[in-house]
Amino acid sequence: MAINIQNILSDNAKSMRRSAIRDLLSVANRPEVISFAGGFPNPDTFPVEDLKEIMMEVLTNESTSALQYGPTEGNGKLREILAQRYRDQGLDITKDNVMITTSSQQAIDLTSRIFISPGDTIVCGLPSYLGALQSFWSYQAKPIGVEKDEELETVIRTLIASGRKPKFIYTIPDFQNPSGITMNLEQRKMVLNVAKKYDLLIIEDSPYREVRFEGEAQPLMYSMDNERVMLFGTLSKTVLPGFRIGWVIAPVNIIDRLVVAKQSADLCTPVFDQAVITKYFEKGYFEKNLSKTIDLYRNKRNHMLACFEKYMPKGVTWTKPEGGLFLFVTLPEGYDSTVLFNEAIKENVAFVIGEAFHCDGSGKNTMRINFSFMNEERTEEGVKRLGRAIEKMFQQSPIESPTSF
Amino acid sequence: MAINIQNILSDNAKSMRRSAIRDLLSVANRPEVISFAGGFPNPDTFPVEDLKEIMMEVLTNESTSALQYGPTEGNGKLREILAQRYRDQGLDITKDNVMITTSSQQAIDLTSRIFISPGDTIVCGLPSYLGALQSFWSYQAKPIGVEKDEELETVIRTLIASGRKPKFIYTIPDFQNPSGITMNLEQRKMVLNVAKKYDLLIIEDSPYREVRFEGEAQPLMYSMDNERVMLFGTLSKTVLPGFRIGWVIAPVNIIDRLVVAKQSADLCTPVFDQAVITKYFEKGYFEKNLSKTIDLYRNKRNHMLACFEKYMPKGVTWTKPEGGLFLFVTLPEGYDSTVLFNEAIKENVAFVIGEAFHCDGSGKNTMRINFSFMNEERTEEGVKRLGRAIEKMFQQSPIESPTSF
Repeated sequence: MAINIQNILSDNAKSMRRSAIRDLLSVANRPEVISFAGGFPNPDTFPVEDLKEIMMEVLTNESTSALQYGPTEGNGKLREILAQRYRDQGLDITKDNVMITTSSQQAIDLTSRIFISPGDTIVCGLPSYLGALQSFWSYQAKPIGVEKDEELETVIRTLIASGRKPKFIYTIPDFQNPSGITMNLEQRKMVLNVAKKYDLLIIEDSPYREVRFEGEAQPLMYSMDNERVMLFGTLSKTVLPGFRIGWVIAPVNIIDRLVVAKQSADLCTPVFDQAVITKYFEKGYFEKNLSKTIDLYRNKRNHMLACFEKYMPKGVTWTKPEGGLFLFVTLPEGYDSTVLFNEAIKENVAFVIGEAFHCDGSGKNTMRINFSFMNEERTEEGVKRLGRAIEKMFQQSPIESPTSF
Repeated sequence: MAINIQNILSDNAKSMRRSAIRDLLSVANRPEVISFAGGFPNPDTFPVEDLKEIMMEVLTNESTSALQYGPTEGNGKLREILAQRYRDQGLDITKDNVMITTSSQQAIDLTSRIFISPGDTIVCGLPSYLGALQSFWSYQAKPIGVEKDEELETVIRTLIASGRKPKFIYTIPDFQNPSGITMNLEQRKMVLNVAKKYDLLIIEDSPYREVRFEGEAQPLMYSMDNERVMLFGTLSKTVLPGFRIGWVIAPVNIIDRLVVAKQSADLCTPVFDQAVITKYFEKGYFEKNLSKTIDLYRNKRNHMLACFEKYMPKGVTWTKPEGGLFLFVTLPEGYDSTVLFNEAIKENVAFVIGEAFHCDGSGKNTMRINFSFMNEERTEEGVKRLGRAIEKMFQQSPIESPTSF
């Protein structure tokens, strides 16, 4: 007789939540569906010829080390390169503050692992990155969403007063996923001040920062306080996701704990991939490819915004992000993007429902639209279909005046 | 003022244990030290030229998918290839029973994550693989060591009677790390019968199985019961460790839970590395390289055994493994390999103390010796130094007659 696994699941497993995006994507994977759902970089940005050149060099000159086990902290040269890049942005760090992770998702996960005990609270945005929420849930944390800046201190003070001081504040200050919003200097200072006042750790998750189309970069929060911020980065949006290389920048005593956690998670991040990326930085290919990527995505954002102007029914609003990969779209109050999703799938177009990014189940009238992946023609056709699906939904269920109480 | 991280560490983090091997290795890394401590494959076994050929092909023909995000379960073709290879060994499985993991360490870790709640017991060998123990500890499990086969049922019955039924039995049936011992058919049946009788899950961790120098392969435990066994595999000992590719074979309802856990751990295993390995199997390169690897390691084992015969003082005993990467060495009762380690480092030779592999702190008179990495000359010199260090220890502290009680 087979094992009844329900009887032996851990408390963590019972607290895990399957990715809503993932399940949506399985519907959206049909070839006739134009999907704005994924967060995929455009394959045109992958530096294929540069990688060919570098891989041959690594295999010819460094195979003994590049194909072997490597240090848990990651490739020493790569850590130094990243440290230098961040020093150039005002961070007071050395390579000892850098650990390479198997994707920045792992950075989130190991950080959750060393800080979260069951029942702990985390403060995060409404909306916020789903993969981070999944990781918090999987350690039985209770993420508490903050909708507006001015609520942050009140939320934290209330949690502390009720004996539930948050373990950290989780933020994505640059081109937030899914909202696309970037925090300005005052907002960054405000969060840092609140964190300092209540002695809290801040997670600065920064996967999109380098992909800025226009406007001035804001200082990294880590550069404004190097004692209570952890900074996460990745190459997934700037070089390629297929290597799964990310990193953590943190005070040394935190890195030390993360290394022990990583030993039992996967021993070390793929060593060959790190060797290739190290050479990629050393040869100066990163900057070259990044500026190409930014140009491409700026055009794609502009095109997506033009299509939205053209095809969206009245009442629908959307962000105009200065960088990143996503538009965040809001339907009139009272409409539900899950209802729309079913309508849209009939029209063969897909997106991610915004509710998935809201830890409290709010945001029902929102959705996330990716603009980095699709070509221009398919984008226009997709937005057209989406507009049609929204029109239909509006006709089928005109909004009643909301109840008040 | 910096955050005091002691105040915010999770219960998991407090339960984590740093790898003793890792700390030993940092001493053993000095160039003048001949180290038998690591578990490193020999770089001569890395198929460098084959990899060059395949990487060029993958970059030329599949870059769009191979550099992109991939499915959490892993590359579909690779999963089918692995399923077929195991069907050839008598397993009744399909590709749906296969999930690719970022190293088999991750397989251990995700399995621990979905099954272990704080305080849960796990039954394992004395000694057992340190990386597995680290993972169990990091989820606050209590691993319970079994020294002899005939104790297994008693240990399990006792645990159940005391309300602490183990979550699973963790085994390494082929060329166990560190002991090098392989379970025969009767032993496998016995473990399966006990597991069935008490309705327990079995982990069959199998990183070394393919590296067999002589003798008949025993059937996989999974082939004898496909409802209560999870099987872990890896390419680290047969192709290269630098890609970090491992896998889990398990009943579909367990795979389903592992996929959710992996979503928040790292989303997917490096996609490029999987594409390369898939082609490597498709081209039949795996078998070719494996037989070369086995020949090399057989010679290295023979040489190591010859050196041990020549240089070990009387009273020291060691295993003669039919495969794998390690000898397991036992000093006369009453001696402590940690004392020896300090003596050996003075002689510039290193190994791993056996105590590190014993979850109950026993095994003080044992040690693990790797034979796959070092060349013949250095091996002989290293064993000579080790013999000398043991002689010195014997002279400095002759064993007293043991106390009896």
